Amino acid sequence: MALDQIRAARSISRVELAEGLGLTSAAVTRIVRDLLDDGLVVEDGRGRSTGGKPRTILRLNVRSRYSIGVHLERNACVIVVIDLAGGVVTRAVLPGVASAPPGEILSSLADRIHVRLRSAGIELSTVVGLGLVTYGPQDWRSGVLLTPQPNPQWLDFPVAERMSEFVRLPVLVDNDANAAAIGEYWLGGVEPSSTFASLYLGTGIGGGVVVAGQLYRGSSSNGVEIGHISIDVNGESCSCGNRGCLERMAGPEAVVRHAWQTPLADRLALGPSVPATEYADFLDLFARITDAAVAGDTEAQALVEESARLLGHASITLANLFDLDTIVLAGPGFGSAAATYREVIAAEVNRSWFSRRAHAVRVVPSVSGSDAAAIGAAALVLQHGLVDRPIHPVPRRTAV
Amino acid sequence: MALDQIRAARSISRVELAEGLGLTSAAVTRIVRDLLDDGLVVEDGRGRSTGGKPRTILRLNVRSRYSIGVHLERNACVIVVIDLAGGVVTRAVLPGVASAPPGEILSSLADRIHVRLRSAGIELSTVVGLGLVTYGPQDWRSGVLLTPQPNPQWLDFPVAERMSEFVRLPVLVDNDANAAAIGEYWLGGVEPSSTFASLYLGTGIGGGVVVAGQLYRGSSSNGVEIGHISIDVNGESCSCGNRGCLERMAGPEAVVRHAWQTPLADRLALGPSVPATEYADFLDLFARITDAAVAGDTEAQALVEESARLLGHASITLANLFDLDTIVLAGPGFGSAAATYREVIAAEVNRSWFSRRAHAVRVVPSVSGSDAAAIGAAALVLQHGLVDRPIHPVPRRTAV
Repeated sequence: MALDQIRAARSISRVELAEGLGLTSAAVTRIVRDLLDDGLVVEDGRGRSTGGKPRTILRLNVRSRYSIGVHLERNACVIVVIDLAGGVVTRAVLPGVASAPPGEILSSLADRIHVRLRSAGIELSTVVGLGLVTYGPQDWRSGVLLTPQPNPQWLDFPVAERMSEFVRLPVLVDNDANAAAIGEYWLGGVEPSSTFASLYLGTGIGGGVVVAGQLYRGSSSNGVEIGHISIDVNGESCSCGNRGCLERMAGPEAVVRHAWQTPLADRLALGPSVPATEYADFLDLFARITDAAVAGDTEAQALVEESARLLGHASITLANLFDLDTIVLAGPGFGSAAATYREVIAAEVNRSWFSRRAHAVRVVPSVSGSDAAAIGAAALVLQHGLVDRPIHPVPRRTAV
Repeated sequence: MALDQIRAARSISRVELAEGLGLTSAAVTRIVRDLLDDGLVVEDGRGRSTGGKPRTILRLNVRSRYSIGVHLERNACVIVVIDLAGGVVTRAVLPGVASAPPGEILSSLADRIHVRLRSAGIELSTVVGLGLVTYGPQDWRSGVLLTPQPNPQWLDFPVAERMSEFVRLPVLVDNDANAAAIGEYWLGGVEPSSTFASLYLGTGIGGGVVVAGQLYRGSSSNGVEIGHISIDVNGESCSCGNRGCLERMAGPEAVVRHAWQTPLADRLALGPSVPATEYADFLDLFARITDAAVAGDTEAQALVEESARLLGHASITLANLFDLDTIVLAGPGFGSAAATYREVIAAEVNRSWFSRRAHAVRVVPSVSGSDAAAIGAAALVLQHGLVDRPIHPVPRRTAV
């Protein structure tokens, strides 16, 4: 917590730190001594005096430790290395998992990361750990995927354990949409005291909720599956087992499948439709539809607006349940139609959410672009590995 | 937090307390000294030695302080006085608010409470405060209702401030369904580390989520409005501003209105239907339907099972968003049909919630009967007033 406070404040005196943490100055002196010994914090000149003797200012030693974040999807894999302040030191985008088995992908990923660290001049010993975020549900504590995504070979695979062997670092596995939410917080996209949800539009639709800088985890860190809440009790069955799911009715695939049934398919060269169970690059096809909507195609506009209305409708549920003050729209899916989505979702929520007499819900674009999840993954490692007393249980780790 | 730990453990040594709180023994010695001075804790003999000298055991001085909980509804008002361990010392049920103005109700309520305390031999100076829980939305920090419930005169009325003047105690106003959830926790109805939701069926449908003993509050303590999440994006408009709301489709009023359109209305003497905007004792009429269902009336059974199915459907949303391990069914509405609701909801959730590969969701009946909200109201006061460092902001209070 002490390091979190120093990070948030950038520079702070011991007295301010004691006030912020509600600890005695003796306790803070002890904590700070350990941080100085570990080189995580440096003393940096004198602060403004408030009458007594001038106070020594503590600063985060930003480049004393690093953390790696990996956002692994079927289509793409984003790697970032961040420093203690959340600044991105190096970044790479690799091809996604496609149909490859996990062992092969993780091993080559580890090799790429070692090369990357060497060329950036970062010693492995200064890296706190690696956060790998991907599809849920997961067994968060053991780092095992409980989903046949990104492909069926990953189901029940011990991702954290094997990745840790390959990369020779502690590895934390988490949900990508949760990570995107915490990434938003670290990048300063929201007020520090905010209760916000990130609504993540990728191939699917995910979400994460952050309350005053802490990820809402629930029982097993599998929460905020906004893509699989039902908006129609009599709707079509979804592969998740529920019916009328938001993702199935309003996600990129749903919009593309609607477009395939209209003249838009020819006009935008969307190609022939594929059966319901088959894979296509829906995010790319969807981008052609949002581009056409922005360019003034009324048929494309209607499809995008209906998708936005349904996302707005689900956002009312999010606000009614989590009492949010902010909703952040994140992920590559919003693309060129981000402004339309923002406008429609904000209007829906603020017209109809239950406690609108109490306060408004702001709907804002992400500040982190498509790196939110990877940055959040790295930030989660820093939160787990560096705070002196984590609020949430630290996931079990394999040895360094 | 120290007092919370002592309360949870019933008896504990300073060493165990220091371990539980992650504080140094010096810090714990200081905290315990203050608790002893205030008479909140007593030293009570010697614990088992673990080799060294025997440890002095600390116990909560259960009857050293009290807290009052009031659950105020249109139909009824439940008052409880609890001790530091959450035990109910005295309890009363009064008529509800009906059409009376707030000033009148609160003043007579305060008189009744003073009489009650005197006859129980409790000094006002030993009462930590009063928690009043009722309809939302509310301005939680100032204790003002932002809803025309229980009747339009209560909208914007400064409930906390006026009640505090009348009763001469600090007053905290909160949402009744939130309070029912924390009441369940205090009464030991769930595992202490549990992430659970209470699904409260009264005249309306409310909810509360508790994570490891702390109420999920969100931005303004107006969260978990499960009755007003939509289960049908194309459903009927609700007075809340949303459409297809769970309460409107599956609550007691909805079931009674369905029954009015069938021969059940005559068979169960439900009386003539009233217009949509008009008030009736729907909870009483609904009880006749659940009683008939339990007695084997197939038409009544069909109505109750459909209501349960819709509650189960909304419970999937709750589980998918909050990642719950337990759902507690609370409130008077379940009445004689509690077993049917439990069975149907458990089946729906565990068949279809997103992360069922990660863990099951238990669906259990409340242990607290219809007093859950009042007991929770009193417990919230103890949590706010007694923990040494509250996690959530303490609501602004008027002077004692």
